Amino acid sequence: MLTGEGCPKTMLSIKDALDAVEGKWKLLILFTLSSGPKRFRQLAKEVSGITDKTLSKELKSLEGNRLVRREVFDTFPPTVEYSITPHGMSLGKVIEELHYWGLSHRKEIIGK
Amino acid sequence: MLTGEGCPKTMLSIKDALDAVEGKWKLLILFTLSSGPKRFRQLAKEVSGITDKTLSKELKSLEGNRLVRREVFDTFPPTVEYSITPHGMSLGKVIEELHYWGLSHRKEIIGK
Repeated sequence: MLTGEGCPKTMLSIKDALDAVEGKWKLLILFTLSSGPKRFRQLAKEVSGITDKTLSKELKSLEGNRLVRREVFDTFPPTVEYSITPHGMSLGKVIEELHYWGLSHRKEIIGK
Repeated sequence: MLTGEGCPKTMLSIKDALDAVEGKWKLLILFTLSSGPKRFRQLAKEVSGITDKTLSKELKSLEGNRLVRREVFDTFPPTVEYSITPHGMSLGKVIEELHYWGLSHRKEIIGK
């Protein structure tokens, strides 16, 4: 493990990352978008438990951090689609490690 | 990247993980403890920006998830020390990936 001994710079980059993906929804939204672009309704359904208000707020924050792209298509009525950016995809390893750790955590807490 | 296509089980383990390390402080606290056991005051100083109230709340939650161990030593006055557990150390890879990603995120957002 990286050690925390006197390295404010490492601390800063971890803070940066946590700030961008903070909360319990952003990584789940990115994970859901990793299988392809989706419309708001689809996303709201697949990220189970999220409210429309929260989803909309989180998508805006993800857009601001260039992790998600919002595209409006010139149809009638206009269609809006959300997709994950290459920068968002670069969070893949973080999400993967969280996934593996989540599996072992459940074992640890619930018992073998 | 793991893909989000129809895998509620992967979603669950990511949720589990996010639940345990949720918020912007827990991983920073664990990172700080990775260099060795610390007393409350030391921790409060090294995790810059955290308030005593939040630190105390976060430590309790980390203890509940078996990520941090609180030990009371039989001195006068009693000494309390916090250390990271092996299960907490197993978050090392997640923290490492977050660190690397935080570096690239800063470049992406602030520009080259």
